[in-house]
Amino acid sequence: MKASVIGATGYAGAELLRLLTGHPQVELAYITSESSAGEKITAMYPHLKDHVELELASLADLDKVAAASDVIFAALPQGHAMKIGKALRGKQVKFIDLSADYRFKDISVYEKWYKIKHEDPETKAVYGLTELYRDQVKGAQIVANPGCYTTTSILALVPLLKAGLIETEGIVIDAASGTTGAGRSLKMGSLYCEVNENYKAYGVATHRHTPEIEQIYSEFAGKPVVLQFTPHLLPLDRGILATCYAMLKPGVTAAQVNDAFQTLYGREYFIRLRGQGACPELKNVRASNFVDLGWQLDARTGRVIVMSCLDNLVKGAAGQAVQNMNVLFGFPENTGLKQLPVYP
Amino acid sequence: MKASVIGATGYAGAELLRLLTGHPQVELAYITSESSAGEKITAMYPHLKDHVELELASLADLDKVAAASDVIFAALPQGHAMKIGKALRGKQVKFIDLSADYRFKDISVYEKWYKIKHEDPETKAVYGLTELYRDQVKGAQIVANPGCYTTTSILALVPLLKAGLIETEGIVIDAASGTTGAGRSLKMGSLYCEVNENYKAYGVATHRHTPEIEQIYSEFAGKPVVLQFTPHLLPLDRGILATCYAMLKPGVTAAQVNDAFQTLYGREYFIRLRGQGACPELKNVRASNFVDLGWQLDARTGRVIVMSCLDNLVKGAAGQAVQNMNVLFGFPENTGLKQLPVYP
Amino acid sequence: MKASVIGATGYAGAELLRLLTGHPQVELAYITSESSAGEKITAMYPHLKDHVELELASLADLDKVAAASDVIFAALPQGHAMKIGKALRGKQVKFIDLSADYRFKDISVYEKWYKIKHEDPETKAVYGLTELYRDQVKGAQIVANPGCYTTTSILALVPLLKAGLIETEGIVIDAASGTTGAGRSLKMGSLYCEVNENYKAYGVATHRHTPEIEQIYSEFAGKPVVLQFTPHLLPLDRGILATCYAMLKPGVTAAQVNDAFQTLYGREYFIRLRGQGACPELKNVRASNFVDLGWQLDARTGRVIVMSCLDNLVKGAAGQAVQNMNVLFGFPENTGLKQLPVYP
Amino acid sequence: MKASVIGATGYAGAELLRLLTGHPQVELAYITSESSAGEKITAMYPHLKDHVELELASLADLDKVAAASDVIFAALPQGHAMKIGKALRGKQVKFIDLSADYRFKDISVYEKWYKIKHEDPETKAVYGLTELYRDQVKGAQIVANPGCYTTTSILALVPLLKAGLIETEGIVIDAASGTTGAGRSLKMGSLYCEVNENYKAYGVATHRHTPEIEQIYSEFAGKPVVLQFTPHLLPLDRGILATCYAMLKPGVTAAQVNDAFQTLYGREYFIRLRGQGACPELKNVRASNFVDLGWQLDARTGRVIVMSCLDNLVKGAAGQAVQNMNVLFGFPENTGLKQLPVYP
Repeated sequence: MKASVIGATGYAGAELLRLLTGHPQVELAYITSESSAGEKITAMYPHLKDHVELELASLADLDKVAAASDVIFAALPQGHAMKIGKALRGKQVKFIDLSADYRFKDISVYEKWYKIKHEDPETKAVYGLTELYRDQVKGAQIVANPGCYTTTSILALVPLLKAGLIETEGIVIDAASGTTGAGRSLKMGSLYCEVNENYKAYGVATHRHTPEIEQIYSEFAGKPVVLQFTPHLLPLDRGILATCYAMLKPGVTAAQVNDAFQTLYGREYFIRLRGQGACPELKNVRASNFVDLGWQLDARTGRVIVMSCLDNLVKGAAGQAVQNMNVLFGFPENTGLKQLPVYP
Repeated sequence: MKASVIGATGYAGAELLRLLTGHPQVELAYITSESSAGEKITAMYPHLKDHVELELASLADLDKVAAASDVIFAALPQGHAMKIGKALRGKQVKFIDLSADYRFKDISVYEKWYKIKHEDPETKAVYGLTELYRDQVKGAQIVANPGCYTTTSILALVPLLKAGLIETEGIVIDAASGTTGAGRSLKMGSLYCEVNENYKAYGVATHRHTPEIEQIYSEFAGKPVVLQFTPHLLPLDRGILATCYAMLKPGVTAAQVNDAFQTLYGREYFIRLRGQGACPELKNVRASNFVDLGWQLDARTGRVIVMSCLDNLVKGAAGQAVQNMNVLFGFPENTGLKQLPVYP
Repeated sequence: MKASVIGATGYAGAELLRLLTGHPQVELAYITSESSAGEKITAMYPHLKDHVELELASLADLDKVAAASDVIFAALPQGHAMKIGKALRGKQVKFIDLSADYRFKDISVYEKWYKIKHEDPETKAVYGLTELYRDQVKGAQIVANPGCYTTTSILALVPLLKAGLIETEGIVIDAASGTTGAGRSLKMGSLYCEVNENYKAYGVATHRHTPEIEQIYSEFAGKPVVLQFTPHLLPLDRGILATCYAMLKPGVTAAQVNDAFQTLYGREYFIRLRGQGACPELKNVRASNFVDLGWQLDARTGRVIVMSCLDNLVKGAAGQAVQNMNVLFGFPENTGLKQLPVYP
Repeated sequence: MKASVIGATGYAGAELLRLLTGHPQVELAYITSESSAGEKITAMYPHLKDHVELELASLADLDKVAAASDVIFAALPQGHAMKIGKALRGKQVKFIDLSADYRFKDISVYEKWYKIKHEDPETKAVYGLTELYRDQVKGAQIVANPGCYTTTSILALVPLLKAGLIETEGIVIDAASGTTGAGRSLKMGSLYCEVNENYKAYGVATHRHTPEIEQIYSEFAGKPVVLQFTPHLLPLDRGILATCYAMLKPGVTAAQVNDAFQTLYGREYFIRLRGQGACPELKNVRASNFVDLGWQLDARTGRVIVMSCLDNLVKGAAGQAVQNMNVLFGFPENTGLKQLPVYP
């Protein structure tokens, strides 16, 4: 089958090229970039040398791209994918969007948090957190691939919300991401000497992944969840770890917590339950599509603390997109995604 | 005046040597290490070459050390300093202990969290978080220098607790520390390739700095505070950042929060109020005794999020110890501590 | 086929497990460790969780291991593999040794530089730098897998030595390696805070990879080569880059240099010729079996500078070992090794 | 006395502010930036908060700046300082230029390597490598502060060249610098994710510090020296290490090499001779004005390898500039520069 990648020159786009090149069923059709159309991708990413020797095309060619592709991935900034989704709606080609444009059921939430007018409110997409929505993904034309912080956070607490073991009030998610999350654009704050040996919070009380997490939490809790989400910037390349705090409902036991995770994830290939007392580490999932989960109960405070981590460019972006592609096309879900984490 | 450093070969000990060497009023008398007695400190720390060309002595010489010193610093693991404190009690020499041995008013709390029988329960020490207890420090013989996570966390929320602006229930402190916090001992988890490009929580629900923070919070709140504290390990050398979550009492305004910080810290040399909306960064305090504070109010959740950061080896250990020494001996509090942060 | 890994708990051993698990023709038989026999490998390396759930055996079981294996890899410190090689000699099982024990044609060179008495001087092994010796590897029972600095350095200058384009006198190799090269053992110099933000040379004029490089250079030059080799320690996990300086023979042109590389490596899957003027980067080969080569001619000094880089745990150790296994067993040489580099 | 800093917003400029603020004899007059005139420096560098609360001026005010200053430092890109030097020539104010504009005796060498037409060829400046030219610095109006790689490299081999112990042919300098050397400007290659976990050479055979080193080597050797210089980019903030290779003249002994270093540097405050067999480390000089030197003789190859390291922002830029200021104004040379290295 043929796949194209729109916005191939960002880190998520390049990661898609790496993963798709290793996928046994996929051949790359087009890769595009508006700023670098006409150049070879290897001029920007020499690590792909000899293996992705494609020239970057322009999006002006969207119809041609669509005609030549079974699936199109878009790794673009917010506000751009909706134009492509609108143009592709109803066509044969599948569309997997890595931006936030199609993630929200309530368009007004998107418009409020992203401060962008949505140009394609009619199109219905499926939210592609594969482990939770794989049945819906199967029949979708457009898949809204979840955000990186979002995937990490959602997978951490959904089992407990679904099982009704935690209070829906008072949830705090304190998360930290590697710097690939900031992309490859030229920003002072992304310079080596600014990030290295440094650590800080950002987007406190205002980060856009907040309402996306709330949307899914609310769905599984069966009632509205409002939560605190604080991201931090880590001096490393890849990985997100979320430390999630929730109040246990009175009387809930460690065994019930364990059962909730086992019930929902016990058979998931990509989710590895490290269990109670374990503290998952970023490096144990690096460059892979795995998610590691651990948790701890605190009798003094009545809380459960769930820690969840993944590689933001893989399970948090390109890897989950390929996982969704596998679902869409009926391949085993881990096809092309079985590589073990790279350690150390 | 003459200062000695007991346990000079750990990172905090070496940092004391760096700071004391730059202090205009101090001359080093003895530096000790049981494991390396007889060696020169520069064999272990070549960065001190030509400037701290002292030989390491043994603690067997404690009386001699005491006789030759106006102040003794101890940078030892828990359980050792109490022996020294006991031996020094009532002597002329001042004793500044960087371990936890003398930090707790209630010895049973120490014994429960540290699993060590306290051998010197009678000795009364002053808790040396200088900005909050400088008047008591003035007259002390023994100063219990606070922990690194503790200093960071206490300074963040005490203004709001003291002013009665936040609820005492539901406080969550999510903190991260550089790897110097783990010391220089040989542990698998401290190897470069294990820490680099990695991030994880540890001591979840069980970290020993928890009761130390609770003790001081409770004192300023006027009632017992139980809180959630979670430390994480950062892939960098120096620095601690604490992100502290608390519920604002109904009706509390941003101006009141700002006033609380200004009132308590407005004239403090080492505390820099970055203000509402600012996210302090580790690198802005590196290798200095400064503490940077910023905060944000979240109307959606009713919380205030206070972020506090410092260099764990300076304000979190050796620097605050020197600051306390300055108080004890009547020097201006910032003597020898005015170096600006090293950036980048 | 069945593969066993002796010394599976070091970084090279763990990398073998990662690569062999992804190899379509291989099943793991035994993995061993003397210090951790009886434990599960995932207790030491949680990144392998769910995928290499094997228990570590002891070498006491060597006969059993050999009987159950088609190939045995040894990732042990120098001096240990010779005992295994001696015991396995003449058996059916293939033996790929990642240590230096079988790399030297002249045992006295080994004994002089390694200060170890060789216990198995009769056994003849093939030097497994696959691109240069693949025909000999095909028929070998024992393969001496080259060192990491060695592979990097040899591949850089052999084309020019073989083509007679450079002087054999005056060669200087200045190289730098990531910290995985120091292994997972507990050494002060491998602690995070000692390596991070640091850089230094080591083993100046005495590093053991020197005679190994000289042996192969001499073979291709047709006369003895004595060279200067200086390794440095980099604050990063994986990768070696060698900057190699040699005097061009009078009249040698850029085209001749280019031809020499093209002639020897033009069809090699794992060697990527970045060409004249290109400076290869460690990150472009990370976690892959690729080697990137670039070079520059300096008319002012008459030198050619060749830069060569690879991942020391893959092409510099485990990856090349698997490549040799593929040659030994008649699989396409890149089987299980096609993963593109992980960037960034 | 009053000092002004032109180009205060780059890393070297900010480092000057840090050092000058800690200098007991200096008060800052003006700090300038064309791109950020009117802003406060602390908006760009919050680590200076409360201590350098100055507003950035514009160079349009040069006369005003000169009138208010006893010394002006310029930390500008090449080609700009010559305009300032020309305007200041003959005035009372001292001018210390951190760029290359005034470093070359032969203007044509500057123009060839920098590809800039020199606009002020008449002005004579003193080359400010303090340890070698302090007598000339004393009487200068304009000091050309040396480059960072240059200072490192020159200090390494000048003792041996001056003593006539090494051949002037065949010198190879392989050096590596932290990323602050690339400045704070927005370049793809300076992004965190491009530099981190990476290492590469650059400017091979063409780096502009080459002729600057050759100029000084030639002067001390008494005949023209042509050398090979290759810089590399390190994934760390601060520091340069040069590994310098030279052929010993026949019969030269280790004692003679040692004597040469002792004779020239034995009484230098900032140069620390680690001696034969020692490998100096970047981290041992970090954030200080010290230079650490070690060396090794190789009987096999007849070479001496000298390793030299310093902090590129301090002794390689701002620190040496302050050292020169101390010489110019008759302060003890280490005034304001005695801080010990920050380790770890």
